[in-house]
Amino acid sequence: MDLRNFFEPKSVAVLGVSKTPEKIGSVIFKNLVDSGFKGEVFAVNPNEDFVLGYKSYHSVNDIKEKIDLAVIAVPSKAVLSVIKECAQKRIKNILMVTAGFKESGNVKLDQELVELLSKYGMKFVGPNCLGIIDNYHAVDTLFIPLSRLQRPRKGNISFVTQSGAFGSSVLDLISAEGYGLSKFVSYGNSLDVDESDILDYLDKDKTTDLIVMYIEGVKNGKKFLETLKRMRKPVLAIKGGKFSESNNSTLSHTGSLAGAYEVYQGVFHQANVVSAESIQDIFDFLRIFEKNIKIRGNRVQIITNGGGHGVISSDAIIHNGLKLAELSESTKKKLKGSLPSIATVSNPLDLVGDADDLRYKLAIETCLHDKNNDVLLVNLLYQTPRLSKSIVDVIGELNHKNLKPIVVVSTGSYLTGELKESLEKKSIPCFQFPENAVKSIKAVYDYYRNRK
Amino acid sequence: MDLRNFFEPKSVAVLGVSKTPEKIGSVIFKNLVDSGFKGEVFAVNPNEDFVLGYKSYHSVNDIKEKIDLAVIAVPSKAVLSVIKECAQKRIKNILMVTAGFKESGNVKLDQELVELLSKYGMKFVGPNCLGIIDNYHAVDTLFIPLSRLQRPRKGNISFVTQSGAFGSSVLDLISAEGYGLSKFVSYGNSLDVDESDILDYLDKDKTTDLIVMYIEGVKNGKKFLETLKRMRKPVLAIKGGKFSESNNSTLSHTGSLAGAYEVYQGVFHQANVVSAESIQDIFDFLRIFEKNIKIRGNRVQIITNGGGHGVISSDAIIHNGLKLAELSESTKKKLKGSLPSIATVSNPLDLVGDADDLRYKLAIETCLHDKNNDVLLVNLLYQTPRLSKSIVDVIGELNHKNLKPIVVVSTGSYLTGELKESLEKKSIPCFQFPENAVKSIKAVYDYYRNRK
Repeated sequence: MDLRNFFEPKSVAVLGVSKTPEKIGSVIFKNLVDSGFKGEVFAVNPNEDFVLGYKSYHSVNDIKEKIDLAVIAVPSKAVLSVIKECAQKRIKNILMVTAGFKESGNVKLDQELVELLSKYGMKFVGPNCLGIIDNYHAVDTLFIPLSRLQRPRKGNISFVTQSGAFGSSVLDLISAEGYGLSKFVSYGNSLDVDESDILDYLDKDKTTDLIVMYIEGVKNGKKFLETLKRMRKPVLAIKGGKFSESNNSTLSHTGSLAGAYEVYQGVFHQANVVSAESIQDIFDFLRIFEKNIKIRGNRVQIITNGGGHGVISSDAIIHNGLKLAELSESTKKKLKGSLPSIATVSNPLDLVGDADDLRYKLAIETCLHDKNNDVLLVNLLYQTPRLSKSIVDVIGELNHKNLKPIVVVSTGSYLTGELKESLEKKSIPCFQFPENAVKSIKAVYDYYRNRK
Repeated sequence: MDLRNFFEPKSVAVLGVSKTPEKIGSVIFKNLVDSGFKGEVFAVNPNEDFVLGYKSYHSVNDIKEKIDLAVIAVPSKAVLSVIKECAQKRIKNILMVTAGFKESGNVKLDQELVELLSKYGMKFVGPNCLGIIDNYHAVDTLFIPLSRLQRPRKGNISFVTQSGAFGSSVLDLISAEGYGLSKFVSYGNSLDVDESDILDYLDKDKTTDLIVMYIEGVKNGKKFLETLKRMRKPVLAIKGGKFSESNNSTLSHTGSLAGAYEVYQGVFHQANVVSAESIQDIFDFLRIFEKNIKIRGNRVQIITNGGGHGVISSDAIIHNGLKLAELSESTKKKLKGSLPSIATVSNPLDLVGDADDLRYKLAIETCLHDKNNDVLLVNLLYQTPRLSKSIVDVIGELNHKNLKPIVVVSTGSYLTGELKESLEKKSIPCFQFPENAVKSIKAVYDYYRNRK
């Protein structure tokens, strides 16, 4: 389905803009105006001539210009009549944030709405959704002000969510964690456009490299499976409503009955969807996926300056079904000849607490050339006295050679935080804890292993 | 074993202070001086008259004053002779940070050291350790400068770690996360004083309410089990070296062979130790434990303003073997009479996205008085438009009545971060994600359930 006009409309009408700036229609209008949107935006309110300092149209039919997208934020009792007005104006794309439909028990309203949409041949996102962001076309129709929810920088992740509030809180955190966003779609009750349509569109979208999805239930399981199987980009999914006991809440939430978790697990497995067990998983897995780092083998070599982190990393590797790489004889010989005797030349390769940048350089470089491993897990405890800020450049240069994926773990607070930020800027994934790093390596490895 | 002189000595001699400020002996001396230690500190260096602007003694025997604790940071080849000097000076408590013993294959040196300690009746912590902090006696013998590793504020957590570097990085994060510390002990190879002695001491320590422990292996399993079983305070443990394949690394690390994980799990279970699967678990569990919040039942009532978070919370509750509480009929009646019809009066209790402080107040207060639940899990998505900063006072006041434990989840970035900090200051545990909150509720519930 061509959803272009939802993401890159040339003109948008917002229905339900009010004199009160806090009302959702007003916030949407304001966000569109403030987001730097290049097209035209029109405010519609049947009772006002001016709202928020802008001209207000009493109906979309009072607007002369062609409208690519109508964003509807009127109360639920008014939705049918404004849809009819939009039809008169020949508006073909509707985004409706209004709630109060099936999710609140009002099934009849859903049916009437569906009939109208079908009659007029409209594409429709919502209702009961939060809106859409396209960072590359400065489209922002969220009904949450910027002061409450920071928007992420431009990037390659697109985020599709059935739940609006979940989407908003995770989006807020995506910004803070420095991830870049292409598109955000909260699709709510999916009366017309559904998750499959959106996935399909994003798979073809040039600014999207990977997709994060929060899903509770789907109406058309076959379409969903077929769409997922066709996807050429990684899809990271988190499923809400895993158990029958928690299904009541999904029903009253987005009006969809959550299917059995086992069925979803089967679908995800068949379609090579990366299944996240928790929100934390999503953020962890993204660290590697968003950098387009492909992990093609399961032999992990640990390098560390702290024994404990080496041990915990080993545990995590075995726990996740990955393999502790074995250093080749020539690597061992080289390292034993160059490292101080207190270092342990094995896996973990323990450079011990007084390791400096050069010792790390030697160890990483040598292991990058060792054919017995597929990925390096570099623990870098920056509390130790002899590491300097230049370690960022050291690892950055070695990583730049693209010999093998390097994943860094650095546990700590402020200084460590700066270090991680600098490494991330050089496209090196950097984790707080070894367990999360290893689980993410496993997820990325599994994705590329199972990819056709 | 009375370890008082390790934590609250009146006089300390540091052996191995050098003219170079970066050397470990110098850093220890500097930290002791800078930490506000009320006792006397003496620098010892056989070749210098002055170090770092202080008088240097050529031997501890040149010091006239009585010495409660000697901190030894000399090279390993010199340790035996300085121990003999300490014996002459009748120093009974030795903390040795020097490495290069069994963990590097030098077993003979260990044996000679043990013989000396036994001969002189010395208490000995180390070798191959990072040092000790006592926040209540301004003792700081870590060989990491303050600029590299932030020290936590005073608090009620004591942290015992076999691995020094692990300890340092976690300590750094403990500070940043705002947790308060009583004591930190890195005990390294535990030639004399071992984990059991330290646990025993901390259990009697007035400023310690709970203990976090990183452990790889113990020498005296029976003593360890007996000690743990005697503990009256919660012990949160993370075990390094869970699998036989990862045991090589623990052997070369602290010179101890990690025992089978199953054995440790058995010990932890018998002694009601809170077993953490990951470093993240430790930080999560602490949020509730450090506030001395006792969770006595497993029926969790979810309150939320975001459906997705409600669903994910439900999933986590079932996944962790807790129970979704059922609202009593009278609570349902009261809530249905007061909440807008769009709200879902069930579990989750969904106040929906336009909930304001008052709606939360009503919901929390009503649920606190409902006998059908034991703990409230309050999801608070602060991206929604109608919540104000006063929500902190609203929840703070309700929590102050001590009716039931309240655990908050608030996913998001800056504004949310401020909210969480304010709630934490009011002794309300605040989590980023529902899954971590629920897992922590389960850990605390299990601890108090199994406590004799």
